[in-house]
Amino acid sequence: MCKNMPTDVPIYHDERLDDLQLKGLKIIQKPNAFCFGTDAVLLAHFARAKKTSRVLDLGTGGGILLLLIHGHYGTTSLRGVEIQPDMAELARRNMALNGLTDAVIYEGDYKAHGEAFLKGKFDLVVANPPYIKVGAGEGREESHHYIARHEVAATLDDVVAAASAALNAAGRFCMVHHPQRLSEIILTMVKHGIEPKRLQMVQPRWDKAPNLMLIEGIRGGKSGMRMEPTLSVYDADGAYTPEMLKIYGREG
Amino acid sequence: MCKNMPTDVPIYHDERLDDLQLKGLKIIQKPNAFCFGTDAVLLAHFARAKKTSRVLDLGTGGGILLLLIHGHYGTTSLRGVEIQPDMAELARRNMALNGLTDAVIYEGDYKAHGEAFLKGKFDLVVANPPYIKVGAGEGREESHHYIARHEVAATLDDVVAAASAALNAAGRFCMVHHPQRLSEIILTMVKHGIEPKRLQMVQPRWDKAPNLMLIEGIRGGKSGMRMEPTLSVYDADGAYTPEMLKIYGREG
Repeated sequence: MCKNMPTDVPIYHDERLDDLQLKGLKIIQKPNAFCFGTDAVLLAHFARAKKTSRVLDLGTGGGILLLLIHGHYGTTSLRGVEIQPDMAELARRNMALNGLTDAVIYEGDYKAHGEAFLKGKFDLVVANPPYIKVGAGEGREESHHYIARHEVAATLDDVVAAASAALNAAGRFCMVHHPQRLSEIILTMVKHGIEPKRLQMVQPRWDKAPNLMLIEGIRGGKSGMRMEPTLSVYDADGAYTPEMLKIYGREG
Repeated sequence: MCKNMPTDVPIYHDERLDDLQLKGLKIIQKPNAFCFGTDAVLLAHFARAKKTSRVLDLGTGGGILLLLIHGHYGTTSLRGVEIQPDMAELARRNMALNGLTDAVIYEGDYKAHGEAFLKGKFDLVVANPPYIKVGAGEGREESHHYIARHEVAATLDDVVAAASAALNAAGRFCMVHHPQRLSEIILTMVKHGIEPKRLQMVQPRWDKAPNLMLIEGIRGGKSGMRMEPTLSVYDADGAYTPEMLKIYGREG
C-alpha cells in the first residue's frame, strides 16, 4: 500500500491504515475500538523529548504517542505499557510498521510497574490517561472506548504513582487531561514527588473555556509553575488557528 | 472638586483624587505609596458578589476592591482589614468619600483574625495579596510598595488561613495572584478546607503566557474546577481587547 512499509506487518479486516503526515509515519488503527485524537497530537508537541531521551508511555493504546514523539524528536528509546492485549499487539505492529526496532511494548498493568518495566530509568514519562472517573458518564464498561476514557484500568493516582516510580531523578512527566481535575492532578503529583512545573491550557476557541490541559512535572523539582500561552484550536471561522497548524506541522 | 462629594473628607498634599468611572465612585490614592492596578479591577469583576453579600477584603490597602465591588454589585456590607495604619485611615476616608456608611475598615493584622473580625460570618472573602516571597525581588522592606508586593506582613498561607476562618459554610474566597504559584495556591487552599472551584488565566496578549490568575474556592466545596475563558488584556495593536473593555465598563 505504501513505500518502505514492511510487508510482514498484517492489517486485519477491522483495521485501517492512516498516514500521520509526519516523516512518512503510518499507523494502523481499529476504528471500532479507539482512534487517536487531538489530545495525543498536543501532548507529543508539548512533551519536548530529546533524540536520546528514554521515553515511557503509560497506557499506550495503539502506540500513537510513541510514534508522534519519534516523528517530532527522532527519539528511538521508546517503551509503552498497555493493559488490553489486542491494543498491545496493535502497538507492537505499529512499531514494526515504522521500523522502530528499539521500541518495546509491554503488555500488562502499569500498577504492577515493578514487573512491567525498570524503575527509575526514564527521562520522560508521558500519559494520555482516562479523563473520567468511573461512575461518571455513560458506556459499556468492557468496551475499548470506555476503558480509554474512564478510570477502569487505572485511576489518576495509579498513573502518577507509576510515572513517579519510572522516572529518574529530575525526570519529566507530561500528561494531557481535563482542567476540571486540575486541583486533583496537582495534589496527586505533589503526593508522588512530582512537582508541577509547566502548564498549558487548551481552548476550543478564544471565547470558550479551556477543555484540555497539558501539564509537565519534574520528579523532585522545586515549586514554581511556568505557564505556556493558552492554545486556541479553532479561530472564529472554525478553521485551525496558526498555532494549531504549526503543531500539526502544516503551516505555510 | 466634584458633585455629591462629602466636603468633610480631607485630601492631603501627597494624595490624588481619581474618578473610578464606575457609578460616580471616587478614590483617593497615595501615588508615592501604592495605586491600584488592573489586578484589582479584574478581581472585582471575577468575584461576582451579590447586593446582599457580606464581603471581607484581606489587606484592603486604600479600599479599592471594596469600592469596585460596591460599584459592580451594589454591595454595602463591606469589611476591610489593613495592617498599615496610614492605608487603613485612607481606606476609611475612601469609604466616607463614597457614602459607604455601612463599610468598616479594621486596622490590624488579619493573622490575628479572631480579634480583627468575626469568624465564619462572611459570604465572600476577597484578597489581592502580595505576590512575591520575601527574599525574591528587590526593594526597601519598609516601603508601602514593598509591603504590597512582598510577603512581609502575610504569607500565602496566612491569607488563605484568614479567609478560611472568616468564611461561612460554602462561602467563597476569590483571589488574584501569579500563576507561577498555582500549585502552592491549590495546595494551600485545600489545606485550609477551601476547594478550588473556578479559575481564569489572564494573558497580556493572545500569544503571551498568562501572568495573572483569578481563582475562586468554596469552603467545604467538592473537587472539580470550572475554567473561565482565558482573558487577553491587549490585542495585537496594543489596544484593550473587547473583553477587557467590557470589564472596564467602556464597551460600545
